[in-house]
This record gives sequence, C-alpha cells and structure tokens, in this order.
Amino acid sequence: MFNLKSITLLTFSVITLTCSAAFADTTMSKEGQYIFNSLAFYIGGVLVAFMAAGFCMLESGLVTNKSVSTIAAKNIGKFAIASIVFFLVGYNLAYGIPEGGYIGNFSVWNEGSKIDTGYSDSSDWFFQTMFVCATVSIVSGAVAERIKIWPFFVFAVIMAGFIYPVSMGWQWGGGWLSTSGFSDFAGSTLVHACGGAAALAGIIVLGARTGRFTGTGSKRVMVPFAASSIPLTTLGTFLLWFGWFGFNGFSQLAMGTFDDVTAITTIAVNTHLAGAAGTVAGAAITRIIGGKTDVIMMLNGALAGLVAITAEPLTPSPMLAMLIGSIGAIIMYFGTKMLEGFGLDDVVGAIPVHMFAGIFGTLVVPLSNSDTSFGTQFIGVISVCAFSFVLSFGVFKILKETIGLRISKEAERLGTDKAEVGVVAYSIRD
Amino acid sequence: MFNLKSITLLTFSVITLTCSAAFADTTMSKEGQYIFNSLAFYIGGVLVAFMAAGFCMLESGLVTNKSVSTIAAKNIGKFAIASIVFFLVGYNLAYGIPEGGYIGNFSVWNEGSKIDTGYSDSSDWFFQTMFVCATVSIVSGAVAERIKIWPFFVFAVIMAGFIYPVSMGWQWGGGWLSTSGFSDFAGSTLVHACGGAAALAGIIVLGARTGRFTGTGSKRVMVPFAASSIPLTTLGTFLLWFGWFGFNGFSQLAMGTFDDVTAITTIAVNTHLAGAAGTVAGAAITRIIGGKTDVIMMLNGALAGLVAITAEPLTPSPMLAMLIGSIGAIIMYFGTKMLEGFGLDDVVGAIPVHMFAGIFGTLVVPLSNSDTSFGTQFIGVISVCAFSFVLSFGVFKILKETIGLRISKEAERLGTDKAEVGVVAYSIRD
Amino acid sequence: MFNLKSITLLTFSVITLTCSAAFADTTMSKEGQYIFNSLAFYIGGVLVAFMAAGFCMLESGLVTNKSVSTIAAKNIGKFAIASIVFFLVGYNLAYGIPEGGYIGNFSVWNEGSKIDTGYSDSSDWFFQTMFVCATVSIVSGAVAERIKIWPFFVFAVIMAGFIYPVSMGWQWGGGWLSTSGFSDFAGSTLVHACGGAAALAGIIVLGARTGRFTGTGSKRVMVPFAASSIPLTTLGTFLLWFGWFGFNGFSQLAMGTFDDVTAITTIAVNTHLAGAAGTVAGAAITRIIGGKTDVIMMLNGALAGLVAITAEPLTPSPMLAMLIGSIGAIIMYFGTKMLEGFGLDDVVGAIPVHMFAGIFGTLVVPLSNSDTSFGTQFIGVISVCAFSFVLSFGVFKILKETIGLRISKEAERLGTDKAEVGVVAYSIRD
Repeated sequence: MFNLKSITLLTFSVITLTCSAAFADTTMSKEGQYIFNSLAFYIGGVLVAFMAAGFCMLESGLVTNKSVSTIAAKNIGKFAIASIVFFLVGYNLAYGIPEGGYIGNFSVWNEGSKIDTGYSDSSDWFFQTMFVCATVSIVSGAVAERIKIWPFFVFAVIMAGFIYPVSMGWQWGGGWLSTSGFSDFAGSTLVHACGGAAALAGIIVLGARTGRFTGTGSKRVMVPFAASSIPLTTLGTFLLWFGWFGFNGFSQLAMGTFDDVTAITTIAVNTHLAGAAGTVAGAAITRIIGGKTDVIMMLNGALAGLVAITAEPLTPSPMLAMLIGSIGAIIMYFGTKMLEGFGLDDVVGAIPVHMFAGIFGTLVVPLSNSDTSFGTQFIGVISVCAFSFVLSFGVFKILKETIGLRISKEAERLGTDKAEVGVVAYSIRD
Repeated sequence: MFNLKSITLLTFSVITLTCSAAFADTTMSKEGQYIFNSLAFYIGGVLVAFMAAGFCMLESGLVTNKSVSTIAAKNIGKFAIASIVFFLVGYNLAYGIPEGGYIGNFSVWNEGSKIDTGYSDSSDWFFQTMFVCATVSIVSGAVAERIKIWPFFVFAVIMAGFIYPVSMGWQWGGGWLSTSGFSDFAGSTLVHACGGAAALAGIIVLGARTGRFTGTGSKRVMVPFAASSIPLTTLGTFLLWFGWFGFNGFSQLAMGTFDDVTAITTIAVNTHLAGAAGTVAGAAITRIIGGKTDVIMMLNGALAGLVAITAEPLTPSPMLAMLIGSIGAIIMYFGTKMLEGFGLDDVVGAIPVHMFAGIFGTLVVPLSNSDTSFGTQFIGVISVCAFSFVLSFGVFKILKETIGLRISKEAERLGTDKAEVGVVAYSIRD
Repeated sequence: MFNLKSITLLTFSVITLTCSAAFADTTMSKEGQYIFNSLAFYIGGVLVAFMAAGFCMLESGLVTNKSVSTIAAKNIGKFAIASIVFFLVGYNLAYGIPEGGYIGNFSVWNEGSKIDTGYSDSSDWFFQTMFVCATVSIVSGAVAERIKIWPFFVFAVIMAGFIYPVSMGWQWGGGWLSTSGFSDFAGSTLVHACGGAAALAGIIVLGARTGRFTGTGSKRVMVPFAASSIPLTTLGTFLLWFGWFGFNGFSQLAMGTFDDVTAITTIAVNTHLAGAAGTVAGAAITRIIGGKTDVIMMLNGALAGLVAITAEPLTPSPMLAMLIGSIGAIIMYFGTKMLEGFGLDDVVGAIPVHMFAGIFGTLVVPLSNSDTSFGTQFIGVISVCAFSFVLSFGVFKILKETIGLRISKEAERLGTDKAEVGVVAYSIRD
C-alpha cells in the first residue's frame, strides 16, 4: 500500500516532469523572453533614432539653401531637448507613475526591472523616447525658414514634456481613450496626426514665408521655392522608411514568443508594402495630373503610405495594406494642394503627410480590426488632434507675444542660416 | 516483482528525464530557434534595405548634376515597384509555391508559419524582397542620364516579377542549378551578375550619353563627365558595405544554433576583409597606373571585393577572402577600361563591379568549397548571365520600339531632372 | 528496505529534476547565451561600423570644398587598412594570443569557439575591429587638407597595428592598467583620448593650413574657413550618435542574461542623455558667448558629451550622465578656443572632442564607480595619452623626413582633391 501510493505519486511526478521538461525544450524561458523583449526595444529604439536623422535630411533637402544650417541645428537640438524633457517629466506623465514623483525618477523605474516584468525599464524608455523625438520633428519642417530657433526649442520642451505625453497617456498609458476601445497600434494619430496638428497651429500663427504667395483668395498663386538638395531629401526618406520597420514592428512591444516575432515580421511586410504603394501612387498621380513624375511627391507619397498603415499594420492583408498606403498618398497629394489654396505655407508637406494620412489611417482601422469601430476611432482622432492643435496654438501665440516667434524681415532676406545660426550651410560654389 | 518492474521503469524514466532536462539546459528551444531565425531575417532585411539607400546615394553622386533628381526618383520608385511585384508574383514564382496560386497569396504563406517551420514566412519574404530590390538597383545606375523613367519602371516590373525570380528559383528555389551542385551562397551570380548582365543589355540598347565618346574604334576617347558629389558616393558605398553584413551574414538563413551564429559572424569577418582588400587594391592600382589615388576606384574596388566574396563567404580563410576581394577589384578596374574601349557607357561602373567581379567570385568557390567544381560553377554563371542578358535585351528592345526608351536630344541637353522629373536637384549655388 | 531506499533515491532524483526543470524553464540555456552574446557583438559591430560613415560625413562636411574627395578617400582607405592590419597583427598583439603566432592566425581563434567560451571568436574580432577603425578616424579629420594621402595610410598601419593594440592590451587585454584597477568601460581613454593624442601629434608636426592664422602670439587671429556642407556634418554626427549605442551598449560584451541585457539598455539611456546634454550645452554656450547658436558647436557638443560618458556609461544616474555630458561639451568649447590660441589647426575639432572630453570622462569615473580612484584613473589617462602622443609624434616626424608628410604649397593652393585624388568633390555649380 505504502509502496503503491509512493509509486503512484512518483509516476505522477514523472509525468508532470516529462511535460515540464518537454515544455522547457520547446518554449522560450522567462529569462529568454526578458532578453528578447528588451532587445526588441533596443533595436527598435535604434531604428526609430534613425528617423531623427531621416527627418533632418528630408528637411535639410527641402528648404531653400538659406535655411539648411538652421534646420540642422533645430533637428539635433530638438533630438536632445525632447529626450531630456521626456526623461525629466514626459515619460512619467504619460504612464502616470507616482512612486518617487513625476520628475526624473529613472532610478525608480530601473529598479523595477525583474524577469517577471518582461523587459528592462530602460529599454522601454529608450524606445518611447525616440517616438517623442519623431513627433517634435514633424513640427520642425513645417515651420522652417521663418521661426526663431530658441522659441522653437521652447515649443519642443512643451511638446515633449506635456502635449505629447498627455495624449499618449490617454491611449498607451491606459487612459480614457484606451478604455474606450480606440486602436492606434504604433501612432498614426498619437504620433503623426498629433505632430501634424501642432505643425498646423505653428504655420497659422507664423504666416507664410515672405514671397511664398502672390495675390489673395482665389487669385492666390504659390511661388515655387527651390529645394536645396533632392538627394538629401531622398536619403532622409529612405532613413525614415527603414526607421518605420522599428517604429511599427517593435510597437508589438515583445519578441519573446512565437506569436510576437511572427507579428513583428508580418507588420514589417505590411509596412513595407504600404510605403511602396504610396510611392507608386505619388508617382502616378503627378505623372497623370502634372505631366512630370514629381520626385518630391513620390517621397512624400512613401511617407504618407507609411503613416497611414501605422495605426494598424498587423491585421490587414498585404493587399489591404497596399490599398491603405496608396490612398494615404493620394490624400497627401490633394491635402498639399488644399493647404496651398488656403495660403498655408508648410515647407516640407509635414501636415498632409503626417496629419492627413495619419487621420485616414486611424479611421480605417476597423476595416481589418473588429475590436474598434469607426465612431470610436473618430472620437480618438478628433480628441488628440484638437488637444494638440489648441495647446500648440496657444503656446505659439504666447511665444509670439512674449519673446517673439518670427525672425525679422531683414533676417528672412539674409536667411536664417546667417541670421540665427551664423554658419552658411554650403561653401560648394567657392 | 511488480514493484521492481515499476521501479526499474521509473529509474529509466528518471535517467531519460535527467538527460532531457540537461539537454534543455544547454541547447536552444524550438521556439527560441524560431525567434532567432525570424529575427535574423528581420535584421538582415533591414540591413539589406540600407543597400537601397546606398545604391541611391552612390548613383546620385556619380551622375552629372543634371540627372540627380531622376536617379532619386528611379531609386525610390524601383524600391517600391520591385517590392510590390515580387510580392504579387516573383516570390511564389521563385519558390514554386502552388497552394492558392502564384498571385499574391501571402496569407497562405503566413498561415504556414509554425514553430516547426523554423521561421515566420513573412520574415523570409521581407529578407528576400530586399535582394530583388538590390538586383534592380544595379541596372539603375548603368543606364542613368538617358533612359526615360517610366520605361525603366516597366523594366523593373519584369526584372522583379520574372527574370530574377526564375533564375533565383533555379538555385534557391531548389531548381536544376541547385540539384546540379552549383554553389552561390548569397548571390555573386544570382543577384550581382544577374543584375549586371541586365545592365549590360540596357546600355547596349540605349547607346552612350551624347558627348561621352569622341572618335570611333581605336581612336575612341572617353570624355570625363564630372561626378556630382563624391561625399554622397562615399556615403553610398559605406551603406552598401554595411548592408553586405546582412546580405552575406544572414544568407546563412538561420541563427538559432551554435553552428549558425558562428557561421554568421565568420561570414561577417570574411566579407569585411574582402571589401577592405578590394579598397586597398583599388587605391594601389590607380596610384601605380595613373599617378593619382582615384577615390572612385577605391569605392568601386570595395564593392567589387564585396561582390566577389558573396558567392562563398563562409569557407575561405580570411587570407583567401582578402585575395579574392583584391582580385575582384583588379578585375573591376580592367573591366571598366575594357567597357570604355568598346564605347559602352556604364555611368557608375555597375557592370565591372557586379557582373565581372560576381562571375569571378562564383568561379573561385571551389578553391575553398569542395562541394562544387569549376565546371559546375561555370555552367551556373553562364546560364544565369545569358538568361538575364537575353531577356533584358529583348525587353529593352521592345520598349525602345514601342513606348520609347531614350529621352530626346533636347531632353538630354536639358538633363533628365528638368525633362523627366521637373525638379532640379540642387539649388545650392543660388 | 530495498524498496524504501530506491524510493528515497527516486524521490531525491525527482526533487533534483524538479529544480533542474524549473531552472531550465526560467533561465537561458548555454547555447542561447552563446547566440545572444555573439549576436550582441554582431549588432554592436554593425552599429560601430556606422561610425566610420559618420566620421566620413562629419569630416567631409567640415573641410573646405577643396579637400572633400580626399577626406572620402582617406576614410574609406583607413577603414580598409586598419581592418586588415588589425586582423594581421593588432588583435593578437592586444590580447597576447600566442598559439599559432601573432600574424593573422584567425583560424586558430575561430576553432576556439565553443559553447562554453560564450561567444564566437569571429564576432569578437568583428566588434573590436570597428573600434580600431574609429580610433584612426579621429586622426583623419584633424590633419585634413594638408597631409599627403599615402603617408597618412602608413600612419594608419602603425596606429592600427601597434599603437592602439598595445595600449588596448594594457587594459582590455588584461595588462598592467587593468590589474592596477583602471576603469574605462568603452574607451573614453583607450579609443578617444588615444586617437586625439595622435591627432595632436599630427597637427603639431604638420603645422596649420596656409592662411589659417594671421599674426603670431597674442596677436594671432584665426581666419574662418567655410565648411563645405553642414547637412553632411549633421548627418555624420547623427550616425556617430547612433553608432555609440553599439559602442557603449555592447561593450557590456554579453547579452545572454537578465543582468547583461538590463545593463546594455541602461547604458543606452545614459549614453543618449549625455549626448543630449552635450548638444544643449553647446547650443547654450555659443548663444550666450557669441550671440549666434552655432550649429557646429552643437554637433561637437553632442560628440563631446558622448565621449565623456564612454568611460563609465553604466553606473551613473541619468542626472549624473547629463551633467558629465554637458561638462564634456563645455570643456570641448574652451579646448577649441585654447588650441586656436596656440595656433594649432585641428580642422574638425577632433582633439577637443575626443581627447579633452575623453580625459575628463575618464577622470570622473570614480564619481559613480567606487572600484577605481582618481589617482588610478589619472595614471591610466597619462600613460595612454603619452604613449600615443610620443609614438605618433615620432612616426609623423619620420614620415616627414623620409617620404614627406605635407603636400606642396602649390598642391595646397589647388586643394588636395585636385592634387592628390584627382577627383573634384562637387560639380554642382556647372
């Protein structure tokens, strides 16, 4: 009896162990998952960091040759400032982390890293920080060539420290948008439309560059300003595209299981195809309407396609991803014309690319993801855009009335490079 | 008796378990292998994607300043078009996947991803797609400055949708070349010589740029055309070089075991040293023959070295890898002179770099890998090059006779940027 | 009795197995660690390779437009030469590997790769090689526009084959500095100050560019030379910054455990914040002192911040990391002025960025890491800098007296691009 019982017990244990050992043999260990997840954030963060260089090259290439050094200064400066401010207050504000207070309690987070939390806290911060840098970058290009550099940096502080974190917290911090069922996988709305709405506020408050438009109302005509370097613009677009593989792919937020890594790579495919379809749409529409194959519209078409798929890059079929990408590019094209019609001077097309295509991408999430509805998506888009636009408008207005926002007419004639940065961008002709 | 038997059984089970648990403790789980393999394709794909930017910068820098925007448009456009076409038909054609038909049945593939398949299907597609983009890029540079942009896009469709996939299928799809014993690890022939042969067909059909050569026959003299930007060319070469770490390294196609990751890193070392040796050979030969240390020949020397090692980057010793790389560069140098002697106008040196060095690299595989022979390698090279050349020649001819292939004399005088793309590349001098 | 004993034994075995299986279930296997560690070196190596492109773009942009092709040639050439020489002799010299001799015995290393060694030998070589390339790059920019290209390559051979490996061996090869307790995590001293000291020797031996200074002593005035391209300089800085994520993060030298990956990501955060703080410090100090927000000082400020944190990126709090980064940038700023005051012509500011900020960063390691002391750090810094400076000075002197080091007055008037490389960098104005 005693023996039989023991043996039964042992047999049971052995079976349990067999399962357990088999399990250990086919699945990833907890520590392995922690390493994979942290590595995902790390690689993702580095890829999204490349977007900062991408934005800088894109904007450097699209402004006139009098404002290139200034764009460089704004982009490296904003990369630095947004990171510091997001470290000091933004991250904790977004996630609502109370222990140790909201101000720069990084040590608290990192002490929270345990195998069971699934990833290192610093890896998450690293990844999230590169997103806030992207958001601020969107504004930088639109307001180029007439904004003073330090007021722009002040705006960057408020964007990275308050505006972006608050609306980010609504969704990714588990706030009201998230509980309402809103779905925005990697940030068509939270990053791109949010940044685009802020850019729209900026260009309204600033006004157009001197000489950009002649006439008013229906007689308004846009004067073409020559882009300083198309190859740098193209390089920037390529870098942004590659950055998007990190931006969307690693917004899966985990890589340590079969399901997660399969999702990451599926997202990469849909993201790539949406960008590709946007490029082709940009080429086709300008060839059909304008006669020439406008390379700038191809590049902005690629970006619009990438923005549009960002809200839901996982659930669409590749065919749907291509459809979403190409419509995003078409919306960008007509949005560009619309802004010009209103006399709004968006130097690099940031608003059509990021805001218009971002809104579109967010609204069509229900096509492939039944966890949300058009109504819910609409409320989310409106909330984030209105919040970003109104606060940004207020901040730009206050800056305008206090320390001044726009450079002088004389400085604009000289160009911001000479007036603000004191370094001419190119001495190639000498 | 009963107890003894049971205990014996249990003892046996315990021993089995001990082994099993020990095994679990020292080797990678199946799920872990799946994650590592999919991650390898993902990182590899991103690195090879950088080659698209690399080709774009290289070509932008080497063309004259009248064709830079066009090169940008062609490169971003081809990146998009090749990806879409390879998704729709090329991938399935190469691998001969019948379920669901050949046209865009991505959902079928991805549903096939199971832990036992070893990697996610989307990760493989992502990686392979970047290879086809590289192949089409090779053509883009050679035919620059006189090809119309849309006929080039039509060619890109056929290259990515048929020519490349068919010869790729011969080898990597398990076709007749593969069964014949042909060995081409990462594509010296399947990617580089294939693209180079298509480029050769293109420049023959197109003819040289106006004014490129004076005189004929033995009195033919090449007129130097100034490269628009050496730093962008250099940047492009660096990006290609780094992309090669993904191109060759992750062509190991797996990372989830000791052997695989050791192979990947050994490949990286040989690849790097072959590129390095090619650079030095390019510097030395121009210094010795021409007096100046020609930076363009250093850059193309690096690329020729990298192309040459691509057929077999794993089995050579580092010393042999350096030898192969430097001979590849020397072949590139004399190949460049030979093409000039024939009055063939390869704008960026794509044919000497990719076709000539690629053929050489493929033929010397037997030096370190006894699984193949010179004869087998020769048949493979000839088959792929002939197939690519003949079909490309036909396609270019048909395009020439139908929608037209070459821009008008007037357009060439203006430059393709003004005539085709409508965007001047640089406004730096203003 | 027999049964009882057996059952007891079995029970014990089962308990052992339970623990063992549980262990297998939560920790990473040995093979997994090997893969992760090798992958860390691989990804790290690729990221640090991007620094080679970063240095090239930074230097291309900062020199005048007469020396851009030469910088390109020097950078791609040095990348190649340093790698080959480090393969042939440097690596073994640094680590003191005797089996098979010091010359190119790579096959010996790679045969040494076993699961128990923790990583593949080739992955380690790949990672370390990119460090030596960075070290030589530092010299390249400082001596630009007047050094002959081939004597520079000879110097690169000696730097990569002897100077760097010897002092590297003192610390990372387990030599006397290491046993003395010196601490230099990723190379503020071993890479950056070492390279900077060699650069200082170089510019002393070479003298300033013709026309760089007017007057002497207290009446010396620096004549500004226009940078050829600020956007390329900015791109270079971004690429260096991203490369630093590999440079510092993967100098943890392992990724296969909870502790290692947590360290890697914490290092990334501190590295990023130090660079950010350096950028802001560079912007603030030039705005306060000079009136304009000097973009070049922002870029060099970023780099100085990154250099300063490199000696100890793990143990500081993020707040301390930002403090170290910003002080590094301020030291760089005043160091730049000091060199100008001495009539020393460091074309790109390599010495203030790499040597001065590197020394500072090394000296403040004890602030957060109690394993070392200020005295020990001081001895390490002095030893490495003195060794590098004295040997480099000797090599440059010998080169000057033998094959010649500086280009002729006529060549300098023409520019090194025409005189040395025979390729004009830009034909944009045509």
